[in-house]
Amino acid sequence: MTYCIAMRLKGGLIFAADTRTNAGVDQIASFRKMHLFQQPGKCSFALLTSGNLATSQSLVSRLKIQATDDKQASLLTAHSMFQAAEIIGEQVKSIIAANAKGQQHAGVDFGCHVLFGGQIQGEAPSLFHIYPEGNFIESTEDTPYLQIGESKYGKPILDRIIRHDTGLEQAMKCALISFDSTMHSNLSVGMPLDTAIYRNNTLELSIERIAEGDDYFNRLRRAWSSGIKQLFDGMP
Amino acid sequence: MTYCIAMRLKGGLIFAADTRTNAGVDQIASFRKMHLFQQPGKCSFALLTSGNLATSQSLVSRLKIQATDDKQASLLTAHSMFQAAEIIGEQVKSIIAANAKGQQHAGVDFGCHVLFGGQIQGEAPSLFHIYPEGNFIESTEDTPYLQIGESKYGKPILDRIIRHDTGLEQAMKCALISFDSTMHSNLSVGMPLDTAIYRNNTLELSIERIAEGDDYFNRLRRAWSSGIKQLFDGMP
Repeated sequence: MTYCIAMRLKGGLIFAADTRTNAGVDQIASFRKMHLFQQPGKCSFALLTSGNLATSQSLVSRLKIQATDDKQASLLTAHSMFQAAEIIGEQVKSIIAANAKGQQHAGVDFGCHVLFGGQIQGEAPSLFHIYPEGNFIESTEDTPYLQIGESKYGKPILDRIIRHDTGLEQAMKCALISFDSTMHSNLSVGMPLDTAIYRNNTLELSIERIAEGDDYFNRLRRAWSSGIKQLFDGMP
Repeated sequence: MTYCIAMRLKGGLIFAADTRTNAGVDQIASFRKMHLFQQPGKCSFALLTSGNLATSQSLVSRLKIQATDDKQASLLTAHSMFQAAEIIGEQVKSIIAANAKGQQHAGVDFGCHVLFGGQIQGEAPSLFHIYPEGNFIESTEDTPYLQIGESKYGKPILDRIIRHDTGLEQAMKCALISFDSTMHSNLSVGMPLDTAIYRNNTLELSIERIAEGDDYFNRLRRAWSSGIKQLFDGMP
């Protein structure tokens, strides 16, 4: 499984993804699920994936190849975030169709979900959830965050804290607590984590990896865990 | 959907269930999912169900009919909790088999999960999760709580708080917070809630219903919600 969160907030965008993949419990590995596509001063995108790893790796490879081919429309030549999301949706559909066609009907799910956010110069930042069918929804002020993968364990804390005007640092802290709760209750989501903060109009993104043993994350986890216990003890 | 929790703790057993059922989002109703079977001074059981409502209602009806028939083994004549769990498992299997046989293969899931706990005089209290296949697992000191239904939203708080030696009142408070988090994030779990606390060797159980607007539960929800926000603001 996987857990990814993205938020579109007043001040910018937040992205966080785990790196654990598993095919059954005896085949666990670590793969990057957050990928950046950028052209300095022109556009900056992050793409987070869950679902079938072959599909999501093909998707990223195809998008990268497209971006080096001047004759094709690609993420880097898209005129709008909507068009960029359509490009991704088309690729997702085409990869799944190609694989599903040749399959042995062994019940394999080739589906892949994508969180896609960023900004193109001259447009406001935006954030999409792209479905395996290639269609997508966009985050709004009423629904400032989107999740894919093992989303349920870490949803209550997001629902309680995240609003459109939540600050970026606060929102990232909340995302990390959401990951902590999820990793506490579900083995299929695991460290290290990849995170990225996008500030409006900077057209610049970089991934910060939080490794096992990260000092800040460990302090946050301990403080949250003991804080919850204290809070619980103080309840009526 | 449904959410039910049961715990087997040092001092006794805890049961909590919501009452919302839904077949799609436009057919929402309220049904009791917690049922008691008791014989004063001899045995005391609670049964919580999730899944297909027709199956779980049939199950409860059959178990009640069995219990009035002196010629049949029933929950009230069972010599051990293990035997009682077997009786329930047999009924679950038989109801699902009867329905599945006549069905139009329209993809209906007749499955039903059961949490079954209580005590028979002379035995220690115990708690089981009975599967649609009729087999079951038993709660132990290492795993003092079991959930059925929409279990993920409310699992993190249980994982952080509940241990085998947690007090019964504290455990019930934790169960209510787990329900609050679940109902906050998922519409298919809803008020009123049914709760029951069983103290070891009392052989006596009663359901306490927490209705919408319940004064204690509202205070708890508000205090937890504002406490979480404060705790969050205080994180490093």
